[in-house]
Amino acid sequence: QDKEALYLKSLAATCANCHGTNGRAVEGSSVVSLAGLQKSYLVAQLKAFKSGARPATIMHQLSKGYSDAQIDQIAGYFAAQAK
Amino acid sequence: QDKEALYLKSLAATCANCHGTNGRAVEGSSVVSLAGLQKSYLVAQLKAFKSGARPATIMHQLSKGYSDAQIDQIAGYFAAQAK
Repeated sequence: QDKEALYLKSLAATCANCHGTNGRAVEGSSVVSLAGLQKSYLVAQLKAFKSGARPATIMHQLSKGYSDAQIDQIAGYFAAQAK
Repeated sequence: QDKEALYLKSLAATCANCHGTNGRAVEGSSVVSLAGLQKSYLVAQLKAFKSGARPATIMHQLSKGYSDAQIDQIAGYFAAQAK
């Protein structure tokens, strides 16, 4: 895997802690799956968390640490995962 | 409560999600209590998470979203909580 793919994987790894590996959340968990969702939807949610437009428990704080470019990469990564 | 105290409480509220209300973690939980720890220790850990010097599952990402001033305020808040 080239450097870019590894970097992307490390970015998305943080999300796995709550959203499951490759964004497939555990059945019945209160946390939503991310795998296969529309990229534009994911970008919009992350930006809403980041701006505070969407209330959250920790997503607002997590998203603050990502640049818009990273948000785009993360959203693309999960959009590409099989549901 | 004045504006400053409310702001500080909202900063620390994010931590409560995992570290418990006022940083008193639930008995036996894998997450450490923060209440009453030394401020300098808390600042050092948050900065180590932020710089990546200390490995983490989500703390590295959470801490990236705080300025050094906020880190100082958060550390002070939890250091002042009764154990």
